[in-house]
Amino acid sequence: MMPPELKDFMERRSRQVERSLRGLLDGKQRPKRLAEAMSYSLFAGGKRLRPILVMAGAECCGLEGRKALKAACALEMIHTYSLIHDDLPAMDDDDLRRGKPTNHKVFGEALAILAGDGLLTYAFETAAANARDLGLDGRATAELIACIARGAGALGMVGGQACDLEAENWRAKKGRGFNPRRTLEDIHLRKTAALMAASLEAGAILARGSSSQRRRLAEFGRKSGLAFQIADDVLDVVGDKKKLGKSGSDEQNDKLTYARLYGVERARRLADRLAAEAGELLAPFGRKARALRLLADYMIKRDK
Amino acid sequence: MMPPELKDFMERRSRQVERSLRGLLDGKQRPKRLAEAMSYSLFAGGKRLRPILVMAGAECCGLEGRKALKAACALEMIHTYSLIHDDLPAMDDDDLRRGKPTNHKVFGEALAILAGDGLLTYAFETAAANARDLGLDGRATAELIACIARGAGALGMVGGQACDLEAENWRAKKGRGFNPRRTLEDIHLRKTAALMAASLEAGAILARGSSSQRRRLAEFGRKSGLAFQIADDVLDVVGDKKKLGKSGSDEQNDKLTYARLYGVERARRLADRLAAEAGELLAPFGRKARALRLLADYMIKRDK
Repeated sequence: MMPPELKDFMERRSRQVERSLRGLLDGKQRPKRLAEAMSYSLFAGGKRLRPILVMAGAECCGLEGRKALKAACALEMIHTYSLIHDDLPAMDDDDLRRGKPTNHKVFGEALAILAGDGLLTYAFETAAANARDLGLDGRATAELIACIARGAGALGMVGGQACDLEAENWRAKKGRGFNPRRTLEDIHLRKTAALMAASLEAGAILARGSSSQRRRLAEFGRKSGLAFQIADDVLDVVGDKKKLGKSGSDEQNDKLTYARLYGVERARRLADRLAAEAGELLAPFGRKARALRLLADYMIKRDK
Repeated sequence: MMPPELKDFMERRSRQVERSLRGLLDGKQRPKRLAEAMSYSLFAGGKRLRPILVMAGAECCGLEGRKALKAACALEMIHTYSLIHDDLPAMDDDDLRRGKPTNHKVFGEALAILAGDGLLTYAFETAAANARDLGLDGRATAELIACIARGAGALGMVGGQACDLEAENWRAKKGRGFNPRRTLEDIHLRKTAALMAASLEAGAILARGSSSQRRRLAEFGRKSGLAFQIADDVLDVVGDKKKLGKSGSDEQNDKLTYARLYGVERARRLADRLAAEAGELLAPFGRKARALRLLADYMIKRDK
């Protein structure tokens, strides 16, 4: 169960993000079907975790969360594009996402690819607009773009997807210079943790946080992102699969997972240790990090 | 035949872009195959037209072209990603590009999608780095990102691809509120001209050009981009197809083209008129626009 304080916080934030995303997508001269495809996945019921992290990162450094709303939406656009592309037949080939038909099932593969490309591109414009609205200087604006690009790109999330592809048939590769544990950590750090770290750091940059604040929040994002992913692996094995609206394809694919490599109990302990280390990083932020602490705690423990 | 002055200029610029791209792609901790897939298409022998436009736009506004090299490379990354995604089986399904196997033929579809995503993402980081290197203020930095995103995204190039998909089977749609000529202009303005306009404007922004200079260069880009696309349509019909390394799929698909809607002669005249209008826009730049004039002239007339 989610604590009521966190529930209130998440609902309020989700509504803000929802409204802001609608405003950002409305009334532009985009081709009709493309706009529909972009909106379809953007409003398919995500938890808005990354945008909430952007705003939480901003609050840790003393900026009101809603002043980071555009960048928050930018991170949600990036997360959404990555789901659209991941679900494609050439990638994970998923028909369902959060219990609804995936983008390419509704709009066709070509439009799904373009909807993803469009969201990724628009994300950078939207983040830059946030920096401009707040009057950030050139250096901070460039750092905001670089931080998001590194988290999302070939060094981060896109790189994680590529590592994931390379790790397929990992059993066959074992022993031939292939270290499954190191590979798995690398995959998850890139695939999930990098964008979560970038979300928090983006918030800190918008809030003109110090470089030590930025580093702490990014590191918190990496550690709790990894813990989150390990918890997700465990959930995939022991949890009610329907609750996530997934078809349990990880297990069918004989995919490299923490639950498989470490066993459920050790994987859980690993997640807990990472979560504790992450929590310590927030100490200097005091009360300002309250929402972030609750959120991280819930994210990682949601399977218990 | 390319005039010798233009040839020298293009070769020098291409070499600069090539070297700069190598530097930008080297030595980063990207997963190996992903890095190979990104490089494969980036160094597949493109003409480097968009980067040359970025540098030409900068020179028109008084900034040495090579000071805009990173943004120039960013635009080439965006162009390259668009080719990788366009060639995918779900899109144009092309096996060859510039006479070489397309990205997905060499690396598989999944990695080709990711290589495109990675290039698009890195482009924004690279453009932002250029702004930072030149000490641009926050507003100009945000405008640079917005200008590139609009040219590349759902309002621009990605939107053009989507319009193109919608226009398939245009013969069946004729008369039912579907205007093939307007649709075709819209497709090409978005698909080709928007990114060329953004390239020139990006150069102008880096050079701290006035808003009137920026508008003129963007409009020049739109007009000459459209003219270029019409010339390309004509070339597809009358030219030696092998020269372009394409398989002539436009004609096989019964695609909406200028040559088909207007006939070769009228399409040529239309391209010439647009080119002349574009040329007039450069008058206030005087000598500084010399390379750009030669380039536009050659681009549009290359089939004659």
